[in-house]
Amino acid sequence: MPEPLAPPSDEPLAADADGEHQRVQTALAEVAADLSARAAAAGGDAQQVLEAAALMAQDPAILDDVRARLGGGANAEKATWDAYAAFRDMLTEMGGYMAERATDLDDVAQRVVAQLRGVPAPGVPASDEPFILVARDLAPADTATLDLEKTLALVTQDGGPTSHTAILARSKSLPAVVGVVGALDAMADGQLVIVDAKAGTVVLDPDDASVTAARAERETRLAAATAPITEGALADGTTVPLMANVGSAKDAPGAVALGAEGVGLFRTEFLFLGATSAPTVEEQTKAYTDVLQAFPGKKVVVRVLDAGADKPLSFLNDAHEENPALGLRGIRALRASEQILRDQLTALAAAQAATEAELYVMAPMIADREETEYFVSLGKELGLERVGAMAEVPSIAVLADQVLEVADFVSIGTNDLTQYTMAADRQLGSVSAMQDPWHPAVLRLVKMLGDAGSSAGKPVGVCGEAAADPGLAVVLVGLGVTSLSMSASAIADVRAELLTVTLDEAKARAARALAATSAAAARQAATV
Amino acid sequence: MPEPLAPPSDEPLAADADGEHQRVQTALAEVAADLSARAAAAGGDAQQVLEAAALMAQDPAILDDVRARLGGGANAEKATWDAYAAFRDMLTEMGGYMAERATDLDDVAQRVVAQLRGVPAPGVPASDEPFILVARDLAPADTATLDLEKTLALVTQDGGPTSHTAILARSKSLPAVVGVVGALDAMADGQLVIVDAKAGTVVLDPDDASVTAARAERETRLAAATAPITEGALADGTTVPLMANVGSAKDAPGAVALGAEGVGLFRTEFLFLGATSAPTVEEQTKAYTDVLQAFPGKKVVVRVLDAGADKPLSFLNDAHEENPALGLRGIRALRASEQILRDQLTALAAAQAATEAELYVMAPMIADREETEYFVSLGKELGLERVGAMAEVPSIAVLADQVLEVADFVSIGTNDLTQYTMAADRQLGSVSAMQDPWHPAVLRLVKMLGDAGSSAGKPVGVCGEAAADPGLAVVLVGLGVTSLSMSASAIADVRAELLTVTLDEAKARAARALAATSAAAARQAATV
Repeated sequence: MPEPLAPPSDEPLAADADGEHQRVQTALAEVAADLSARAAAAGGDAQQVLEAAALMAQDPAILDDVRARLGGGANAEKATWDAYAAFRDMLTEMGGYMAERATDLDDVAQRVVAQLRGVPAPGVPASDEPFILVARDLAPADTATLDLEKTLALVTQDGGPTSHTAILARSKSLPAVVGVVGALDAMADGQLVIVDAKAGTVVLDPDDASVTAARAERETRLAAATAPITEGALADGTTVPLMANVGSAKDAPGAVALGAEGVGLFRTEFLFLGATSAPTVEEQTKAYTDVLQAFPGKKVVVRVLDAGADKPLSFLNDAHEENPALGLRGIRALRASEQILRDQLTALAAAQAATEAELYVMAPMIADREETEYFVSLGKELGLERVGAMAEVPSIAVLADQVLEVADFVSIGTNDLTQYTMAADRQLGSVSAMQDPWHPAVLRLVKMLGDAGSSAGKPVGVCGEAAADPGLAVVLVGLGVTSLSMSASAIADVRAELLTVTLDEAKARAARALAATSAAAARQAATV
Repeated sequence: MPEPLAPPSDEPLAADADGEHQRVQTALAEVAADLSARAAAAGGDAQQVLEAAALMAQDPAILDDVRARLGGGANAEKATWDAYAAFRDMLTEMGGYMAERATDLDDVAQRVVAQLRGVPAPGVPASDEPFILVARDLAPADTATLDLEKTLALVTQDGGPTSHTAILARSKSLPAVVGVVGALDAMADGQLVIVDAKAGTVVLDPDDASVTAARAERETRLAAATAPITEGALADGTTVPLMANVGSAKDAPGAVALGAEGVGLFRTEFLFLGATSAPTVEEQTKAYTDVLQAFPGKKVVVRVLDAGADKPLSFLNDAHEENPALGLRGIRALRASEQILRDQLTALAAAQAATEAELYVMAPMIADREETEYFVSLGKELGLERVGAMAEVPSIAVLADQVLEVADFVSIGTNDLTQYTMAADRQLGSVSAMQDPWHPAVLRLVKMLGDAGSSAGKPVGVCGEAAADPGLAVVLVGLGVTSLSMSASAIADVRAELLTVTLDEAKARAARALAATSAAAARQAATV
């Protein structure tokens, strides 16, 4: 991928300030229109990200700042560049979610300056041939609008397996290996490489046998993806419902088309993000009813608002936090603003009454039995039947026996559980090697939850990214997990893999993984 | 405590800018001198904090900025106020450790403006009567220089049990209850209250019987603190070495005087903080030799550099981290800069050769067996005999059996272990209730480590603040912990409490605590 634009010159403004202001205004409008178009084309999670970027390009405060800088004698490019830089610094200073948006703002600034210079915006170059894309990292606008007919795979130098880029790639079924140190230096245009997203490896200049094997593997996977949809099950008939993680009602039909037997994680943040106050009970009831209607007689697991950390909401939590991932998030934030939680549970109960879906409701970041009791009793009081907890905080696994006495079910969020168990930020490149759900410490915690669920006769699901890894999916089932939820695009591969093992074999693989002393050793022990 | 100063007026500068600049310069010098004097009087950890504040008051960049603002027509107070505010914003923007220093900078700014106004600096008011101090939080300069003859106890509204204030209070044997929501509104000057730091409670308007009981308890504790020093042991003679956490060589004599049988945690950051490059092997050898010489024939456990999180070092880790507590810290940072680690281990081996102390060396933030093998083999290669791991990351407890196959010993850092197990920032007031090492999830992880140590026949110590809680110390021993290290001032109380129980009783209390479903229930079950 091309490098970012060079900074503009300091040359003073030659033209008249009003004319230049007009020119900047036009460039901003064009970039905003382009981003809006990309948003509409992208759909899903990406749409929201791109719509936010389009709004950044139309921010009146930035345009005012540009005018002031033009008035001070700066040229149009310089004025624009500096106005965005100032706004970026302000966001960075605000920390948390806002600071993460600074990268998106940089992308917008690059697009506007490119527009002013009359050069193409930095981004993915056009190609007539199918290609493997190697980049430092991708802006959301790039990832979301990749030409999937042409892009065979994605390799990035930065980012971890749960980064923005990795998640968007997965949602598009695009093989991706992220966080490959030195990737840009190691690979050149036109070089032959094999990207094995399952193993997380990139092979440079492979020999003929490897290429043949890789092609065969690709055919097998494509065939699996187009096989008729059956119920998730092991070779011995043990059923393992395979469900989809979805972020809004409009994702539901796509999930069903890809073979989802229900929804294992319905995120409700979309109703709250960007709002200055919580949506009403009526608004929420309608939104939940829309989703539940798509799954008559099927299981739908709804996660109540997961605010905080990378998703702060001004009406829930506006304090600066030094370590937002360890802050007032999830159930902690909801408990501090109980009316918001009550309204959401009330709306969910109303949606349940109006539909035929089998509704499960869970809260994020529950740490122990006391928090479980609080949430379960509030849910039952407001008319819900099945109320449970997400297992993301290590303590809930250690106390699984206590928690499953009161929760109706548990669903494991492997991304956060891994992050906290290893004390390694899932978004941070320098510790991304530790963010591996194959780590035996994580698997041992999953087993504590699986054992407790089995003793209590209650379901224990997984709705983290780990469930989308076919080899790991088998191990999770061997550890006692009773259902798996993932990006809908991953379901076909996981279904095919589960059918190759019996429950006893899955348990044997799990035992080998538990005895390993590293994530890599666990993966190898369980998949040979 | 009095409220902070009101902001200065916007009135333009009346006097001449040069004269006002001189006046600001004098005020800065006086504040710096005052802070330096407080630093010298405080000693220990506080000295360093206050010396840093004195440097902030003399920062030439701030003075330059004040001059520019005076030149722009601002009055002296306003120019000073705004210059500090700008610097503060810059620090906040830098994130991490620097952002935390913003609070200290505010304290300096308040002192300078008070000096210019000719009013006393905000702070602890003088009193002739002994008093209980109730405050929102205390600036380091206030905590460090409290009149300990007059201050009976400390209650703060903000901060958790491992906040700056709490740790400094503990290092001064000052009873403190921190993070009391609504403390300032609930209590008035002259009101009678009982502060029970052991139970973490504040009783308002107690009845006569409570006052009598509290006075008797206080007498007992004062008597215990002055009893002759004996080896740490249970009632049945089981020995439990009681050691001190120290931060530099000059703390060693004081620790011995307070009954420390050795050093359970010697922090080495003092050699590195504020430096632009790592100290030489010779400098380090001398510093370690100084400490080891104070403990001939005794155990001294040295923790290698714990950089990162709230203690970043520019030569080790200068990247911005969104969640520094989950970042490139401890062994991760050292491994990325191995020469720094090699030099430190080389110096430690040289100090061991030159002295009679029994040296143990451990690394912070070790997560699994692979990291343990790395550190232990490097330590042995460089001539160390006893090399181990700190247990702070939840994964190390879950994998304790694997880790104790290769580590010579483990020492549990309960503060960080609790923080990560509960996924709750130990510095954040809004989740401070979760930062309680009595939580059964934490106790269960301690038991995994204790059991593994017992099976492997290797020592498992605790060097976190939990060891300083006499009731919890008994439970920790019951969970299999073989030595305890704490602020030296806490040793007498813990020694007295251990002597009241046998090992079987300690195990029975531990079992009751493990079965509890909350920290409060565990504390109650184990101490009745």
